[in-house]
Amino acid sequence: MPPDTALPPIRRQEIAPRSGVAFELAKGDRLTIIDPKGEQVADLLAFSVADRDEVISSGRTLDYASRIYLTTGDPIYSNRSNVLLRIVEDTVGRHDFLLTPCSADTFRIIYGDTHPHHGCFGNLAAALAPYGIEPDRIPVAFNVFMNVVVNGETGELKVEPPLSRAGDHVTFEAETDLIIGLTACSALQSNNNAFKPIHYEIRPADAAPQSP
Amino acid sequence: MPPDTALPPIRRQEIAPRSGVAFELAKGDRLTIIDPKGEQVADLLAFSVADRDEVISSGRTLDYASRIYLTTGDPIYSNRSNVLLRIVEDTVGRHDFLLTPCSADTFRIIYGDTHPHHGCFGNLAAALAPYGIEPDRIPVAFNVFMNVVVNGETGELKVEPPLSRAGDHVTFEAETDLIIGLTACSALQSNNNAFKPIHYEIRPADAAPQSP
Repeated sequence: MPPDTALPPIRRQEIAPRSGVAFELAKGDRLTIIDPKGEQVADLLAFSVADRDEVISSGRTLDYASRIYLTTGDPIYSNRSNVLLRIVEDTVGRHDFLLTPCSADTFRIIYGDTHPHHGCFGNLAAALAPYGIEPDRIPVAFNVFMNVVVNGETGELKVEPPLSRAGDHVTFEAETDLIIGLTACSALQSNNNAFKPIHYEIRPADAAPQSP
Repeated sequence: MPPDTALPPIRRQEIAPRSGVAFELAKGDRLTIIDPKGEQVADLLAFSVADRDEVISSGRTLDYASRIYLTTGDPIYSNRSNVLLRIVEDTVGRHDFLLTPCSADTFRIIYGDTHPHHGCFGNLAAALAPYGIEPDRIPVAFNVFMNVVVNGETGELKVEPPLSRAGDHVTFEAETDLIIGLTACSALQSNNNAFKPIHYEIRPADAAPQSP
């Protein structure tokens, strides 16, 4: 039997609009996040399986990159300065690592909603709870496809429609065993006023190293 | 006896170069951070006394402000979207809330040091330990006087000399009872290549409301 027929097929999973999931990603596995319809953000978190107090850190990652926009080749560092994920493919090149996951507070403070949705924060908290990760442990997410424009003079931030088109994707490789939290973002402004699904695929470390 | 003579005098405290302190700041108290010599950064953290898992959040604060540069009038939100501090006076207007406190990792990764200093992170961790705050709980600090310039086109970050001159200061008011961590920053690049002290003063809530 040729060895590659023994590998499980790569199965594409769907995250429904305004929802989220959590799952384990082993060292060397590749996670591809796909925008199936275009202009849809996905908030990504990663915690170390070995110690869940180790989590991705925007402050360390942006400091070491000396850039706010990350893309192919860039590592995502933890709060202990270890590389948890590395971006190995990116068909868009514009993502955000400045802003908090949207939450009931976001919708109350920014949108003025009186009965706010629980947002990506609520979806991440619910999905990560079975892994023993508390809501207070949720930091700034890596906001895949989110297009935050910064005015260098005034410091003003503007959330613009994502640059992703249908089928665009980003692939991350795990540098250690991880618990991943991932959403289809719930904030109108971030997704050009339409809530769409997000797709993802996991390619195990022992699968053939090819693009999805 | 006139009531104001019963008030304790406002005493100026000094943080030695490349060191840090922690102290409590009660609701309504005002903390003034002074750059006594100019071009010196101070990393500021604030945790809620009521629950030390509540801490300042760059992601929530910048999101709600829709700006990366904060100044007089701006609130500093927590990871639970409560206002912990408010900037009530600012003679400089340029501070950073993007980058991690400098650490042994910073000096190893960015500067290439083989025997790195423990940095603001190490100073904050040591000063906060008696309050039961673990190093993993240290988020992006509000980096007072730190001048990080962002290129809006490329996303490139540059750490420039602070705009603060001798005597410049920022005053924060506590909106709840807080544990404060505060440093005189240890990174050469952030302080125009010279390590200087930082001064601070605490004006209790019941003191006369005047500028320092």
